[in-house]
Amino acid sequence: MKNLKKTEGEVAVSTTPLPGRGDLPARDLLLQAASELMIELGTPDVSLHAIARRAGVTAPLVKYYFGGKEGLLLALVERDTARSLAQLEGLHATNLDPLAKLKLHISGIARTYSRYPYLVGLLNHLLRESRTKASERIKTSFVTPLIEAQRRLVQEGIAAGQLRPIDPDKLYYIIVGACNYLFSSRLVFANIMGDHLSGPEFEREFAATVIDVILNGVRA
Amino acid sequence: MKNLKKTEGEVAVSTTPLPGRGDLPARDLLLQAASELMIELGTPDVSLHAIARRAGVTAPLVKYYFGGKEGLLLALVERDTARSLAQLEGLHATNLDPLAKLKLHISGIARTYSRYPYLVGLLNHLLRESRTKASERIKTSFVTPLIEAQRRLVQEGIAAGQLRPIDPDKLYYIIVGACNYLFSSRLVFANIMGDHLSGPEFEREFAATVIDVILNGVRA
Repeated sequence: MKNLKKTEGEVAVSTTPLPGRGDLPARDLLLQAASELMIELGTPDVSLHAIARRAGVTAPLVKYYFGGKEGLLLALVERDTARSLAQLEGLHATNLDPLAKLKLHISGIARTYSRYPYLVGLLNHLLRESRTKASERIKTSFVTPLIEAQRRLVQEGIAAGQLRPIDPDKLYYIIVGACNYLFSSRLVFANIMGDHLSGPEFEREFAATVIDVILNGVRA
Repeated sequence: MKNLKKTEGEVAVSTTPLPGRGDLPARDLLLQAASELMIELGTPDVSLHAIARRAGVTAPLVKYYFGGKEGLLLALVERDTARSLAQLEGLHATNLDPLAKLKLHISGIARTYSRYPYLVGLLNHLLRESRTKASERIKTSFVTPLIEAQRRLVQEGIAAGQLRPIDPDKLYYIIVGACNYLFSSRLVFANIMGDHLSGPEFEREFAATVIDVILNGVRA
């Protein structure tokens, strides 16, 4: 049985290592522990102490692997966004038409935020500290490529006559916001709208609805 | 000249009282100070000390007016959402068709988040503390009425054949997310996308684009 303890906003979370993870390297174990705690607590504001405890390692090991908490958070962002970025590159290499590409792109964004609901909060936190190296690395390795890839998709779609003329930068905020809000707010809405919000079926349906509304909204 | 001081994530903010506010009651002065600091810092995570200093009052006065920090945050949510709720009630009383109502409704949501970009973060923070009175009050006085009003609008629109059949709860997250993400993330994106993000013209255009994309997306 998990050792439940009230921490971080009085939500009961397990702080003991999960069983069957002994084969993961300590670095991955720490990233996984941070990810799980952020999901359970509904916020990226998780203490280093809680992360280390959950991973079953001591806090100095975090310093050894990541140089400190910011390094760990940065590595988590890189872990969580690696697949999206790879998919985005793959998407550009396909022969699909722009509308089909945009559909796969929105679906990838919805999947990323459903899997890592803390991601927007974590990115905002790291970007706000705008004089740090972490912030620069996030901008150049994730945020800028995502914005530019989406700009290109939208411009291709407009040029092909498949999309109505629309400002890609404004559409960026609409798409990311529409995909992200449910997932980032799910915990706090759970007892307002009922617990159906967290099932995998609702997630699939939600992603389908976002794609449907936005594609219908931008189609020429 | 304002007394600039680095606090709260190293953003330079003024902590001395603004001139010409002496006629505002201290209670309103505190709410206004909290609102301005949250906008300038790009986060609802502002210390009570900084709020009191900005308002030009001492911290014990916060306890006198609001019972403490949570009381102040709750009063700020109520101040910021009062106009939206009044407009929503007015909307239901009109003879407009459902699509026109939905358009005004989305426009009101975009305006609220543009004016109070910290609102979603603040609501999430207060709702997460789900055993407190503040959380219950926010649910019953703001979140539930907003969800229910929007459900009603969407159902009327579907019944009138103006909207495609769509789950109002999913649409709720899409609309609020699309309206809110730009404003809640504007500070951190300012030096990625350029400073045009913060002008009043961009805000008007952004709201118009959200309304355009979503209404086109849900129209029958």
